[in-house]
Amino acid sequence: MYKKVNLEQKILSSNEEYAAANRHFLNQNKKLCLNMISSPGSGKTTILAKTIIMLNDKLKIGVVEGDIKTDLDAERIRKTNAPAVQIQTDGACHLSAVQVSKALESLPVANLDLIFIENVGNLVCPSAFELGETGKVVVLSVAEGDDKPVKYPAIFAKSKVMLINKIDLLEAVGLTDFNIERAMADARKLNKDIKIFPVSAKTGKGFDKWCDWLVDSVKNLQSQ
Amino acid sequence: MYKKVNLEQKILSSNEEYAAANRHFLNQNKKLCLNMISSPGSGKTTILAKTIIMLNDKLKIGVVEGDIKTDLDAERIRKTNAPAVQIQTDGACHLSAVQVSKALESLPVANLDLIFIENVGNLVCPSAFELGETGKVVVLSVAEGDDKPVKYPAIFAKSKVMLINKIDLLEAVGLTDFNIERAMADARKLNKDIKIFPVSAKTGKGFDKWCDWLVDSVKNLQSQ
Repeated sequence: MYKKVNLEQKILSSNEEYAAANRHFLNQNKKLCLNMISSPGSGKTTILAKTIIMLNDKLKIGVVEGDIKTDLDAERIRKTNAPAVQIQTDGACHLSAVQVSKALESLPVANLDLIFIENVGNLVCPSAFELGETGKVVVLSVAEGDDKPVKYPAIFAKSKVMLINKIDLLEAVGLTDFNIERAMADARKLNKDIKIFPVSAKTGKGFDKWCDWLVDSVKNLQSQ
Repeated sequence: MYKKVNLEQKILSSNEEYAAANRHFLNQNKKLCLNMISSPGSGKTTILAKTIIMLNDKLKIGVVEGDIKTDLDAERIRKTNAPAVQIQTDGACHLSAVQVSKALESLPVANLDLIFIENVGNLVCPSAFELGETGKVVVLSVAEGDDKPVKYPAIFAKSKVMLINKIDLLEAVGLTDFNIERAMADARKLNKDIKIFPVSAKTGKGFDKWCDWLVDSVKNLQSQ
């Protein structure tokens, strides 16, 4: 006798169990954990390195790096002296909660205020896999065009924060290809509570507000 | 009694059957069919629209458009007067061969020289799913950084052509973030036969060589 099973649901529900365990661990220890998701090349690693340096005196930050191949990104993070653990997915298109669970064991979590998870560069698949994070941060580079919230709605609907990165390229890209007002309005149509910070990880523009939000979020969590 | 099955292998092999049927159909009819793969926002649709207009007198081109949501891209292609069929994957992260098989039925294939398939914006998953295409074209925008061939090797290893797009942004992006020689050398390390065309879909720079290659490839196929 055969029973029809929904494979996607089965895989997701096994992931959900590990995600729940990660969430419980992070909540109990009052650690803010943000899962960063974007297309390849939107600037996630550069944003993280800049954020760590700017918050050097205020927050202790650790990073879980997800990549298909290479540990280039973890190397870049370690140059800031922050602890970083690399997960190589070896072809897989997203991080899973069990991978993050193991990575958290390798980080000095007790000494950290904030843990970033840098997901695999992919605007689609990572949005379907909860890792137990406190919230998701979607990064959109202005070079990708302002139509991405409409064309890839899932991740914009689920994220706590949207970083619009590479605003230093706005002029070179041009208003017809990236109208920042349109990108923001479309993201808010999908998610009225989303926080939006336009930034340039290259020049540092806009990082003050993003860093203030991180510091406030950590304080709020730790005072609960 | 239970038998352990490799799920990924099963899904892939069902896809492979449809891909083989598509390949047979395209070969029999001597149609060149190129599967375009890139991150979201690398400029696939803009490249296609420009290519169709530039080759207006030389090749009859049709397009299969893959998107998660919206038919914005097919609309953009239809403005060039080329026939375009939209596939909305509704969340799925890649096109499948069965979807392409149905889409080909809606295109006037007998009247076409060249069929482009624009895959879902995703540098990872589409590389694992053959569609029956003659070859893959990977698009990398200079704004994404020159480390993408090393970090996402599968698609660069499998592609017939690499288009390095948005070379109009090279100066604004800067040599530390995109060294075109490095990107080309890394792609060739993975794939010594890959054809590489640096282009700007915005200014048209580099399109002459890319279009010549398309015309020659169609001629070669039709004269076989």
